[in-house]
Amino acid sequence: MDFDFVTAQAAIENAIQKLNLGENPRELYDPIRYIMSLGGKRMRPMLVLLGKYAVADEWQEELQAALAVEMFHNFTLLHDDIVDKAPLRRGQPTVHEKWNDSIALLSGDVMLVKTYEHLLEHLPPTLLPVILRRFCQTAAKVCEGQQMDMNFEGRKRVSMEEYLSMIRLKTAVLLGFSLEMGALLGGATPQTVAALYEFGLQLGIGFQLKDDILDVYGEPNKFGKQIGGDIIANKKTFLLIRALELANPMQTRELDYWMNATDTNPQNKIDAVKEIYDQLHVRQQAEKVMNSYFDNAFAALTAANLAPERAQRLRSFAQSVIEREK
Amino acid sequence: MDFDFVTAQAAIENAIQKLNLGENPRELYDPIRYIMSLGGKRMRPMLVLLGKYAVADEWQEELQAALAVEMFHNFTLLHDDIVDKAPLRRGQPTVHEKWNDSIALLSGDVMLVKTYEHLLEHLPPTLLPVILRRFCQTAAKVCEGQQMDMNFEGRKRVSMEEYLSMIRLKTAVLLGFSLEMGALLGGATPQTVAALYEFGLQLGIGFQLKDDILDVYGEPNKFGKQIGGDIIANKKTFLLIRALELANPMQTRELDYWMNATDTNPQNKIDAVKEIYDQLHVRQQAEKVMNSYFDNAFAALTAANLAPERAQRLRSFAQSVIEREK
Repeated sequence: MDFDFVTAQAAIENAIQKLNLGENPRELYDPIRYIMSLGGKRMRPMLVLLGKYAVADEWQEELQAALAVEMFHNFTLLHDDIVDKAPLRRGQPTVHEKWNDSIALLSGDVMLVKTYEHLLEHLPPTLLPVILRRFCQTAAKVCEGQQMDMNFEGRKRVSMEEYLSMIRLKTAVLLGFSLEMGALLGGATPQTVAALYEFGLQLGIGFQLKDDILDVYGEPNKFGKQIGGDIIANKKTFLLIRALELANPMQTRELDYWMNATDTNPQNKIDAVKEIYDQLHVRQQAEKVMNSYFDNAFAALTAANLAPERAQRLRSFAQSVIEREK
Repeated sequence: MDFDFVTAQAAIENAIQKLNLGENPRELYDPIRYIMSLGGKRMRPMLVLLGKYAVADEWQEELQAALAVEMFHNFTLLHDDIVDKAPLRRGQPTVHEKWNDSIALLSGDVMLVKTYEHLLEHLPPTLLPVILRRFCQTAAKVCEGQQMDMNFEGRKRVSMEEYLSMIRLKTAVLLGFSLEMGALLGGATPQTVAALYEFGLQLGIGFQLKDDILDVYGEPNKFGKQIGGDIIANKKTFLLIRALELANPMQTRELDYWMNATDTNPQNKIDAVKEIYDQLHVRQQAEKVMNSYFDNAFAALTAANLAPERAQRLRSFAQSVIEREK
């Protein structure tokens, strides 16, 4: 069947609605249904389907495998929200707010178990060992990236190299894996599988850099999150790290002042830090680096050597990531 | 190779010491090494080896599969200790005390991922799907049992049926699975596999009932935990549930008084509740029910139809569980 995004998106949402991972005790399974129903872009299952469509027509056969990746992603959100004490997820109360920390912890655990069970039930036996192995490696990396991110919170300085390695692990490898799994399910050659993984990886790093930029420079009514949230939280984003690299002694002192300031007016902090970002042109530099990752993604796509009409769908997807405003 | 417990125990400890699941970031992997090194009876890996030895000689080949179950068990302890806010585990600081809640949460997550990876690396491909499927089902049940246990904390009354179903899920199914996996790896017939699973399940329920009894009636210098801990925490154990079933109105009022009492002297509470237990002979009844589960276990062992010298090892193991004083 030909691939179009509207049909694929509807098929993903429909499959999520039909997903029933368990019933009792309700405290364990209601939170799973809840977080899965909160929406989101569903990028990862879409990438599984696109990975399959890159080399074969029957993308709809992989809907359940695609859901497993979305389940894993939502498991990480559920547990990350506990760690971050986040009150809201996609504008709705987080699981630990709506229920409590213990329920969020435990329903996350069962969600990870059910992700494996879902893969087991829906992957063809011949591909099961290789895909499960790659999934385990990917899942461990996502945890490592999250731990690095947590470690960065307690530090005054983080190098650009450390930061890029963190976002690669926390965000990008799962996008790469999604495409890789789809391609493996489609019977792609090892060269194509590797190139599509690389496409997802590079796209994922660019995606996260875009997130850093939008957090400061996004349109408030489009972005959906509070503009300047990263600045208030002293998040070591590309922008802050590059600013600290380039700052003169006075700018360094000012950045350090705001990072240590307590009881400050949040908007004053956002304005002051943004002013330094502007003086140092870090937005332009972030965009340059981001674009180099997007270029890498397109180069990997070329190396995947796909039929032109199939490559076109993947290029459209990348374009929508590049142009996103939220 | 012939099976003896001393050699098997040493082999398990040695394999645990050699286990290296990852290095960086250290906050993620040090807690795993730490909790795995705290010791314990290592019942579950022993049961995997015994399950294999029940039908085949090469029990040492299954050491790594056995470790995976111990890893999973320790993952559940790590997360349960966060939920219970437990300060100590086997006399040492718990992971969330030694590090913090977020690190404990995340290193538990990666521990579960590494459990699956370990199974993948060490199970023969032909048995991988069936064993992984049974492992997923078991792991979900353990989470369900833990959630039921948490739910019971917030309730005034729990029925005996609910309680027995909780300990079956939280504790017994993993002992059953350990034997089942060993037997599957040994190429046992479906009938033997099912009988050994049942043996572990019944043994596990008896094991937990013994725990309830020891918590109140154990020898303080042998038990290793505080005597009366369950009474202080208002844990809905077999003893409390049966006492509430049998109590006359005055005894019910007294039990409710102590369960609602705050700022009370712990020893007074223990003595008072124990006095009611003694009046109602709940210890004897718990022992009777416990023994019926141990009888069921031995009956299942007979149904497994093993060679006599192999059955003997499993009987010895059950005997050590029955006679344990800690």
